Amino acid sequence: MSNDMKQAALDYHALPIPGKLSIEISKPAETAKHLALAYSPGVAEPVREIAKDPENAYKYTGKGNLVAVISDGSAILGLGNLGPLASKPVMEGKSLLFKRFAGINSVDLEVNAESPQAFIDTVARIADTFGGINLEDIKAPECFEIERILIEQCDIPIFHDDQHGTAIVTAAGLINALELAQKQIQDAKIVCLGAGAAAIACMKLLVACGAKTENIYMLDRKGVIHTGREDLNQYKAMFANETNKRTLDDAVEGADVFIGLSGPNLLSAEQLKKMAANPVVFACSNPDPEISPALARETRSDVIMATGRSDYPNQVNNVLGFPFIFRGALDVRAKRINEEMKVAAVNALKDLAKQPVPAEVLTAYELEALEFGREYIIPKPTDPRLLGAISAAVAQAAVDSGVARLPYPQHYPLTSIEEVYG
Amino acid sequence: MSNDMKQAALDYHALPIPGKLSIEISKPAETAKHLALAYSPGVAEPVREIAKDPENAYKYTGKGNLVAVISDGSAILGLGNLGPLASKPVMEGKSLLFKRFAGINSVDLEVNAESPQAFIDTVARIADTFGGINLEDIKAPECFEIERILIEQCDIPIFHDDQHGTAIVTAAGLINALELAQKQIQDAKIVCLGAGAAAIACMKLLVACGAKTENIYMLDRKGVIHTGREDLNQYKAMFANETNKRTLDDAVEGADVFIGLSGPNLLSAEQLKKMAANPVVFACSNPDPEISPALARETRSDVIMATGRSDYPNQVNNVLGFPFIFRGALDVRAKRINEEMKVAAVNALKDLAKQPVPAEVLTAYELEALEFGREYIIPKPTDPRLLGAISAAVAQAAVDSGVARLPYPQHYPLTSIEEVYG
Repeated sequence: MSNDMKQAALDYHALPIPGKLSIEISKPAETAKHLALAYSPGVAEPVREIAKDPENAYKYTGKGNLVAVISDGSAILGLGNLGPLASKPVMEGKSLLFKRFAGINSVDLEVNAESPQAFIDTVARIADTFGGINLEDIKAPECFEIERILIEQCDIPIFHDDQHGTAIVTAAGLINALELAQKQIQDAKIVCLGAGAAAIACMKLLVACGAKTENIYMLDRKGVIHTGREDLNQYKAMFANETNKRTLDDAVEGADVFIGLSGPNLLSAEQLKKMAANPVVFACSNPDPEISPALARETRSDVIMATGRSDYPNQVNNVLGFPFIFRGALDVRAKRINEEMKVAAVNALKDLAKQPVPAEVLTAYELEALEFGREYIIPKPTDPRLLGAISAAVAQAAVDSGVARLPYPQHYPLTSIEEVYG
Repeated sequence: MSNDMKQAALDYHALPIPGKLSIEISKPAETAKHLALAYSPGVAEPVREIAKDPENAYKYTGKGNLVAVISDGSAILGLGNLGPLASKPVMEGKSLLFKRFAGINSVDLEVNAESPQAFIDTVARIADTFGGINLEDIKAPECFEIERILIEQCDIPIFHDDQHGTAIVTAAGLINALELAQKQIQDAKIVCLGAGAAAIACMKLLVACGAKTENIYMLDRKGVIHTGREDLNQYKAMFANETNKRTLDDAVEGADVFIGLSGPNLLSAEQLKKMAANPVVFACSNPDPEISPALARETRSDVIMATGRSDYPNQVNNVLGFPFIFRGALDVRAKRINEEMKVAAVNALKDLAKQPVPAEVLTAYELEALEFGREYIIPKPTDPRLLGAISAAVAQAAVDSGVARLPYPQHYPLTSIEEVYG
């Protein structure tokens, strides 16, 4: 980033008042009569109703449309473990995106926990406050166990976006890319450079979408993960193959897919040349990809490429996923976000890229007219159809898989605020 | 409450959308350029600045104007221990009042804690997220230890409003009432019916304002708290006098002040008759006071009376305190809310009742013109002067007592949002 851009980001956060969120009153609260309804003595009535039936919290409080973004600051963006407080701008930013893209009220919580268990206990004890919890920027491998136990202990959706958000958007783009390359996911040889939270989740979801574990070569800092290694945690071990491949050079030989969730410039032109015809390259390291799109194109004209950047085609951006996935889950009061819902999100997302954007939507949202193809394998974050398409698919999958507590679709009563309060 | 009023309160909470709060975006967030400042990649800059110096969180995030309202639901209003989730409407209501009266962003958190220590650990671990924490509806005696330890562990204001808010507003009204009764607080014989969190805090603050412990008779369910009792926790024991008084009948004999923080209709006309001339009666049980104002007035024309109700003169209402106390504390980034700040709030509140409301303010805020006297010993919650007067006094006291991290007054830069973003 340029120094100007850095200063603009600091100014954005500081001026004219610090932060990016404001908590506002959504009901009339001017007169003494209003306040007698909002607080004592009127508030005793919803209290009694919720004491009778906890589900009434969804009827009388903001719980049902409220998501907490929670981090311990142990893996902030690509910056590492800078502690909980330093992660606050990111978490507030995530809350901003929840509102901006899906109308979800969201607050951030930074947890200063001395251990994964302390983090789990803290989140579990406050979980009832919310309709869902988005875990964020928690380092691997702790994040896996933290999420697993919280899902067990809570009856609201718990979703570690660095894992599943990334996985869903990547899978959608990848399936479309393979279609363009005229390859089957079942047969695709996949190299995954990186073995952190996002990488593990991506490969698990690709397997759920049809990829074969034996076709996947995952690499950590020490090279290819294989059955001969004794330094693997249980999560990496799931992707250990019996193979003689040891290095990235070995792994890319004849590979159909390269997925980079690692660091800048780790894939060379020479390595790209070794890949199979119509190679699919997702270089997701941000801001600097594993290989620059310019170099990739220059090296091979048949490459199908995606990055994490907004200034190149095919941006793999989590914002294509989490706001709409939570919207769908909240709309049917889902108890959790299960594999069926994730796969539904993948399918909705990949299908949307193939549906031409109506002309009037293009104009209204200042979108470029793009046709499904190598330069457009995944929708743009500003595409207004995402909200309806993904949320509906996720909600329907929640209902079909039995984790929804409400039928779909649910709508708030159409009564206006003026009608109720005059 | 009438059934109509009960239904209106339920409707208020449920329609047209559940709850009373909405979380909104306070910066431009429409275009891709905006989002690149609010989230990745721009957000990395404030992250780095906060990692360098934690105080920068006040500059680049909403922390400095954000208060959490936190409860375990163990003593909800007068309804008792109904659990954390049932307390949510009250906590959301408190957050609403923070915004309505002092422009403070506030979120509620309901904590499902298996022990006071678990509650303390949970709150301490998330405390950095906020500029201050308002504890609410936590039962005595646990609340005392919870608050004490959290104050020790956190460097932001931790304030149990049921204790100190009630105490501050009661003390302000009481000092004015005693002035009208031409009595000195040093000499006043005070009966306190109730020995819960609010009662203990009230009596402690009255002692800080000049009352003598030996003149205070506190009563719990078993009668007068005296040195002969062996069933007292350490908090009640502070108010154990050597006395032969055992019952409320004994205690009110010749008393100057009755403070009720107990339950409906517990002070009889006969008992009121036994009090000294110009008796001061604060019957704060809500909604039904310890003695009705009508009965009190009928029994003695010299009574100076306050209640917790808005439909009688002299309402002792916590909203006269907590929004402005936190405003003052946040404005100078106070590390805690100490005794000096509480006493400053008492003095500012009592003085405000003696200052005539300017005619233009009366009109603009639809306030009744009231003159300091028996029917007006404490300002009305809708008096717009409260914000300036109490916040300034509290902030100044924080600076003078050395717990402020900023000089007073602090103002946000006058730059407008349009100036910054064009």
